[in-house]
Amino acid sequence: MNDKAMINAFGQADFSRLSAAEQALVARRERVLGPAYRLFYERPVEFVRGEGTWLFDRDGEAYLDAYNNVASVGHANPRVVAAMTDQAARLNTHTRYLNEGLLDYAERLVATLPSELSQVTFTCTGSEANDLAWRVARARTGGTGIIVTSLAYHGVTDAVAAYSPSLGAASPLGAHVRTVSAPSLYRQRDDVGARFAADVRAAIADLQRHGLHPAMLIVDTIFSSDGVLADPPGFLTEAAAAIREAGGLFVADEVQPGFGRTGDAMWGFARHGLVPDLVTMGKPMGNGYPVAALVGRPDVLAPFGQNIRYFNTYGGTPVAIAAAGAVLDEIEERNLMLSAQAVGRLLRGDIAAIGNAAIGDVRGAGLFIGVEIVGPDGEPDAVLTGRIVNGMRERRVLISASGPSANVLKIRPPMVFDAGNAEQFTATLAQVLKENT
Amino acid sequence: MNDKAMINAFGQADFSRLSAAEQALVARRERVLGPAYRLFYERPVEFVRGEGTWLFDRDGEAYLDAYNNVASVGHANPRVVAAMTDQAARLNTHTRYLNEGLLDYAERLVATLPSELSQVTFTCTGSEANDLAWRVARARTGGTGIIVTSLAYHGVTDAVAAYSPSLGAASPLGAHVRTVSAPSLYRQRDDVGARFAADVRAAIADLQRHGLHPAMLIVDTIFSSDGVLADPPGFLTEAAAAIREAGGLFVADEVQPGFGRTGDAMWGFARHGLVPDLVTMGKPMGNGYPVAALVGRPDVLAPFGQNIRYFNTYGGTPVAIAAAGAVLDEIEERNLMLSAQAVGRLLRGDIAAIGNAAIGDVRGAGLFIGVEIVGPDGEPDAVLTGRIVNGMRERRVLISASGPSANVLKIRPPMVFDAGNAEQFTATLAQVLKENT
Repeated sequence: MNDKAMINAFGQADFSRLSAAEQALVARRERVLGPAYRLFYERPVEFVRGEGTWLFDRDGEAYLDAYNNVASVGHANPRVVAAMTDQAARLNTHTRYLNEGLLDYAERLVATLPSELSQVTFTCTGSEANDLAWRVARARTGGTGIIVTSLAYHGVTDAVAAYSPSLGAASPLGAHVRTVSAPSLYRQRDDVGARFAADVRAAIADLQRHGLHPAMLIVDTIFSSDGVLADPPGFLTEAAAAIREAGGLFVADEVQPGFGRTGDAMWGFARHGLVPDLVTMGKPMGNGYPVAALVGRPDVLAPFGQNIRYFNTYGGTPVAIAAAGAVLDEIEERNLMLSAQAVGRLLRGDIAAIGNAAIGDVRGAGLFIGVEIVGPDGEPDAVLTGRIVNGMRERRVLISASGPSANVLKIRPPMVFDAGNAEQFTATLAQVLKENT
Repeated sequence: MNDKAMINAFGQADFSRLSAAEQALVARRERVLGPAYRLFYERPVEFVRGEGTWLFDRDGEAYLDAYNNVASVGHANPRVVAAMTDQAARLNTHTRYLNEGLLDYAERLVATLPSELSQVTFTCTGSEANDLAWRVARARTGGTGIIVTSLAYHGVTDAVAAYSPSLGAASPLGAHVRTVSAPSLYRQRDDVGARFAADVRAAIADLQRHGLHPAMLIVDTIFSSDGVLADPPGFLTEAAAAIREAGGLFVADEVQPGFGRTGDAMWGFARHGLVPDLVTMGKPMGNGYPVAALVGRPDVLAPFGQNIRYFNTYGGTPVAIAAAGAVLDEIEERNLMLSAQAVGRLLRGDIAAIGNAAIGDVRGAGLFIGVEIVGPDGEPDAVLTGRIVNGMRERRVLISASGPSANVLKIRPPMVFDAGNAEQFTATLAQVLKENT
């Protein structure tokens, strides 16, 4: 269970620190679950209840959730639960029967996207959406080359794992995959858009030199696992133009930034003033009910879909659609996108104002925040980052870390996180920083 | 929307036969859904409610569901709905936190399998389970060759579509994939087990001749898309031995036959008296809630899982597990496996007793039944099969068809299908046969 490639993973070395009850649960996991499972934290947590932005353990202790983006409209959201329940008690079939609710939601969803992106295919998971994007991109471009950022995570199917370098060295990248450094304003301190585009152009040339036509450049538009990179707005535009010029597609993986989290728009790509050829989405889409999707331009989707059928048993079922519809209702009626923008800005400001020298950078958009932790020399400090993540957990605040140097605090709470939650978060972080620096 | 490769697909040619309201829905689908979607039947159906083995359209007309295996313990099953609701209202997180319910279910699930198969990894979909099986098989064997039956369907991820020939000629098989004819007692009339094993051995030799080490032979143990093949019990044993002898794994895809449907056992492979190296499962597992799994021997899972992590955001979440647990409760407490055995036997007997010459063979196990439709010459009659499937739909009984010649009625009702339902089914089939022969 030790995984050096995974930030914030529980390891065997941590076992002896656990209580007898925790050890028993961990031992049962190791016996009955496959060995590919990993736990979070040096001292893993068990939750038994959730509400809004809070999770509760067996002892009734409350944890402030500043990590889980899936329960985007709040843990155990009553409206989502009611919508699921009502639909599940009536009907749950599949998309090979007509269903008006499916079309109502699909039309509502595409209305949140640029008008060119007008057709949806539902899947169950973001992995499946990215897997399908890859099949569609190949059919459309005739190419087989893929360009991703150097610590990208796009999913766990065989095809997608092959272009998800963040899974670690043991999970080999495909021979058809090239990686480029993610655009970091903090580390690069130059025109990151031009530099990123130059790297993409070099990757295209390298693919071509190997006889591979580029099919797509795919990026998580908030660069979650690359360390949370949002600025300057527009930095993706030139790279998107470069891949298109080479005959490939620009694919926006919105599984993490999508559905309003970045505060200024429903979709992360909007920040960069461009329209992708394909967009994938998932995680918060059903607030935990499995539902994900691929959206694209009809002309991009046609070469695949006219010749090859795609049926996903659980994709876009009436219950999935009911949950997804309730999530959109919540985002709209509770103004969660604006709230994410305001609370996110407040939180970034307050974290920066802690004024601890270990905080090298505070960045992000809306409620997707990265805090770069550095040593006295300004270099990434992964050890301190690990201490902070685990120190926060001991004080019952949930975060994790990411980035190529494993030194960026990943702060990504449910979108119902409010100013009071932000205040408590900052106070706890200040305390943990003080104890560890 | 025309797909010659897909049996029982709605096609453009059928559009003019629809009512104005149906045409409007189909037109909306074509506008807002990706072009890879397909509908069932010459005249597609819209359902708005389900209960037990019944589906209801907008006009309140009841359809006898003899097709949908996902809603295995009945449409809108109250126990499953209550379990989902109760859990969703309390908590829905993921497997990187400890969760006792996950372990309780995992232990209960493996207890239904041979003791060697003791470790579970949860996914969302059967496609993901088969995709993961392929990664695990490669890591374990060092091989990359796959053997499947000639009309197998295992799923829709890029890797799994490459070994799912039933997706049709437009969806290319991988260069590392070999197909073998499925063992048909009706068509082959000889020792199908020996013949199947000989074909598998030839495929192994051909892989090796191309420098490819065989990683796995994977079969749907009821051969759903190959035409529903169950007899004689034991016919898989020799082929499983052959792939193991060559250093590959025998993988049982239980997505369709699993969870008691075949009546004589919880898992289809049990009929053949063997223990697979890996088992995948899905569809009926959560009665429509997305949950699927890969189960295997620890030594088979180890090479992958010890080096590579696998995290599926929605895989094995508390709500998925609650739904899956309720399904097991229903199967056990309502004796649905025994019921599937008894009702299936009755149904097969009654169908055979119709005595129409177009019925070439009635076969299957439990509530997974195939009826081979033949012309006067005894040859497969796909046109008549299509007429029967659509004729049944017009009389509000849902089935489909499968098989390499598209001439096998696929009858696969929810497991709550009872003797009265069987009687109605047979009467309708007799009527439709009479009208069409």
